[in-house]
Amino acid sequence: MNKQKTGNPRGTRDFLPYEMIRRNRIFHIIRTTFEHFGYLPIETPAMENLSTLIGKYGDEGDRLLFKVLNSGNFMEGIDILNSTVNQMAVAICEKGLRYDLTVPFARFVVQHQQEISLPFKRYQIQPVWRADRPQKGRYREFYQCDADVIGSNSLLNEAELIMMIDTIFSKLNMDVCIKINNRKILSGIAHVIGCENKITDITVAIDKMEKIGLEKVKEELLSKNISETSIQQLQPVLLMEGTHIEKLKQLKDILQSSETGLKGIEELETVFDYISQEGLVPNAKVELDLTLARGLNYYTGTIFEVKSLQIETGSITGGGRYDDLTGIFGLSNMSGVGISFGIERIYDIWSELNKNQIDTTEQTVRALFINFGKQEEIYCLKALKQLRADNVCAELFPDNLKLQKQMKYANAKNIPYVILAGENEMELQKFTLKNMQTGQQITLNYEELLTTLSK
Amino acid sequence: MNKQKTGNPRGTRDFLPYEMIRRNRIFHIIRTTFEHFGYLPIETPAMENLSTLIGKYGDEGDRLLFKVLNSGNFMEGIDILNSTVNQMAVAICEKGLRYDLTVPFARFVVQHQQEISLPFKRYQIQPVWRADRPQKGRYREFYQCDADVIGSNSLLNEAELIMMIDTIFSKLNMDVCIKINNRKILSGIAHVIGCENKITDITVAIDKMEKIGLEKVKEELLSKNISETSIQQLQPVLLMEGTHIEKLKQLKDILQSSETGLKGIEELETVFDYISQEGLVPNAKVELDLTLARGLNYYTGTIFEVKSLQIETGSITGGGRYDDLTGIFGLSNMSGVGISFGIERIYDIWSELNKNQIDTTEQTVRALFINFGKQEEIYCLKALKQLRADNVCAELFPDNLKLQKQMKYANAKNIPYVILAGENEMELQKFTLKNMQTGQQITLNYEELLTTLSK
Repeated sequence: MNKQKTGNPRGTRDFLPYEMIRRNRIFHIIRTTFEHFGYLPIETPAMENLSTLIGKYGDEGDRLLFKVLNSGNFMEGIDILNSTVNQMAVAICEKGLRYDLTVPFARFVVQHQQEISLPFKRYQIQPVWRADRPQKGRYREFYQCDADVIGSNSLLNEAELIMMIDTIFSKLNMDVCIKINNRKILSGIAHVIGCENKITDITVAIDKMEKIGLEKVKEELLSKNISETSIQQLQPVLLMEGTHIEKLKQLKDILQSSETGLKGIEELETVFDYISQEGLVPNAKVELDLTLARGLNYYTGTIFEVKSLQIETGSITGGGRYDDLTGIFGLSNMSGVGISFGIERIYDIWSELNKNQIDTTEQTVRALFINFGKQEEIYCLKALKQLRADNVCAELFPDNLKLQKQMKYANAKNIPYVILAGENEMELQKFTLKNMQTGQQITLNYEELLTTLSK
Repeated sequence: MNKQKTGNPRGTRDFLPYEMIRRNRIFHIIRTTFEHFGYLPIETPAMENLSTLIGKYGDEGDRLLFKVLNSGNFMEGIDILNSTVNQMAVAICEKGLRYDLTVPFARFVVQHQQEISLPFKRYQIQPVWRADRPQKGRYREFYQCDADVIGSNSLLNEAELIMMIDTIFSKLNMDVCIKINNRKILSGIAHVIGCENKITDITVAIDKMEKIGLEKVKEELLSKNISETSIQQLQPVLLMEGTHIEKLKQLKDILQSSETGLKGIEELETVFDYISQEGLVPNAKVELDLTLARGLNYYTGTIFEVKSLQIETGSITGGGRYDDLTGIFGLSNMSGVGISFGIERIYDIWSELNKNQIDTTEQTVRALFINFGKQEEIYCLKALKQLRADNVCAELFPDNLKLQKQMKYANAKNIPYVILAGENEMELQKFTLKNMQTGQQITLNYEELLTTLSK
């Protein structure tokens, strides 16, 4: 038999148990918090019709879609000579792998509009696929965790999303800064500096402030034919300092001629008012960042972004308010607001922060029963049955091997306790419990054993 | 803007919240039970290299693999004129979607053999994809839930798997029959009836006993050139009745000339001995079924299959012992035993059995706070923050709409309690709780509210 190549595809990952246990811990925190806030789970298929996906993510996105070959004689009727590669790809592939969770959600809402009631609060935690060039921290398969509420314009939703973000990062023991801005303010600024038609160029440029600095942003704006005068009017906004109250006060002056801009200020004031109430103030730092723009063009109101205050990385969570999620699929006026947690980066940061607690972050099995032979096996199996019913993860080594080998297994699997039950213990209806870290041994009855292992 | 086609691909499914909540409940029971038994989670990517998948599932399987088109100019260097459709598919597709969890697990074990320690107990719950013709109950994307232990020959593993199956179906409140057989016994039978080289034909035929009956099985055996004499010798085995003890006793006579057959009997006796011990007897009916063969050829010892005793369907769980999981990838002597839960059928049966408890099977959100305006919102948000920290799922309606509309939302979302907190309640620091089913209203303080909602 030929030995075959046994790797996983480039840009994809296998997850070993220790990684899965950590990832599941993070997913569990996110999922339960979503549910505490009234968001309900949905799932959509990995494959969508290509017609659902193409044209939704720009030319670059179309190029990065993984396409699934049609079954059967996929070449039948294909005019190879007169087709470009792209035309041929679409002709031989009806389906593609989902690229994000937003477009499938929009398709879902339109398709199931009779089965859901508004406002509809959904969360979705599933992998997505992108044919990106693989590099450190960028994968071709990765999970997204999205929560959206659609069908309600209330700014209470924005405030609750901030509280939800805060709850999740508090539970993860991560210090973060939640940055907020409002697209209407950005529109207002573009208006007052006389560049209303250049709003996209402006947002793309100022979004890079933190990364490339003021001078480079100015250069980029100039290269987009934004005048020196306009840039000079923009500069004080980009450099504005102070609390959100001070910033909003200054902005009211600057934007007094822009109705949209003033609306944006009002919206932010409302959001900040909720989270400034006694008892509702987040643990996280919440900051009004006027350079926050977020690339995606469908945002129309509040926008959010979260960064770690402990380890420098890009954004680890982001989202915002959109006016028209489902228009492209023929259902208009469906506004909403949502956030997406960047689970892969969150996992990296969380692992780095917890690298010294590696023992406890990777445990599930609490105890290994040593196998001393058939009689003892039965005795241990009975105790195991009770322990498992009492919600303790535990196992019996399957073979009667040398003690040393069995101990090695417990260590390799990072199991904190080993249970020795031989003739003596069986006679007394007891169990000898060995703490693998301290080496300490004590003899216990079942109830005491359960108490220790349940801790 | 053109309205686009908005369906999901044929043979795939969207899951609405009520379906997800039920599915998650079933997955949760399976996952926690796996963990109680010491199985650890892994995940592998949705895409595998096609070379990993092709040739592992027979010709039919190869045909049913979903293939993923290469990125970029996939046609470059392809000799269209001299390629068959299959050759071309493999030339333009390096990757495919996983077809089951067993082959990816085998690849994983070989690739990560330095990172795992034996015996290795893993579970894996992920979707798989097959380009089957969609029909009722058969999907192109469906989940598999597998648990395997590799690197141990101990029959304790088989016994524990039976206990694990029993625990899971007990927790699901499903009455099942666990059928057991042993491939070595089937080999022994083939030997004593003089058809050792026809073992595959025999297992394929007798596996259909329950479905097509004795006469049709005999016809099939005849058509495979198995002699009348052999079939007559086989018949009493197929029709054998009684307890497993009675059957094994008769088999010992029949198989006395087959070493393999006697080994199979001994293995089954050991397995039955474990689960006959006082306190270890399963709730499920466990039955020795000599017509159980299971199609897959890699099984070499004990085989299992589970059927519902309440609703007639095919097998809902199956598995067995194999001697050589990873040989095809160059790592030999890796034996193990595993089971796979047929989650889609289990879901159908469980939903049917619980259709009258639909209210309670679909609940996550326990209470909706009615929105009476800004002042009340703040009051409710503070209570909500505490409730969520106390692990209660609850929400505040985001808009101050008419009471009737808000009530309608609670009903549509199947929320059992509504909380009314207006001026009076705020003054008294109380909450009026309305039971949506009985209509009953009571006024409570926070602690009493928490107690009621936590039930």
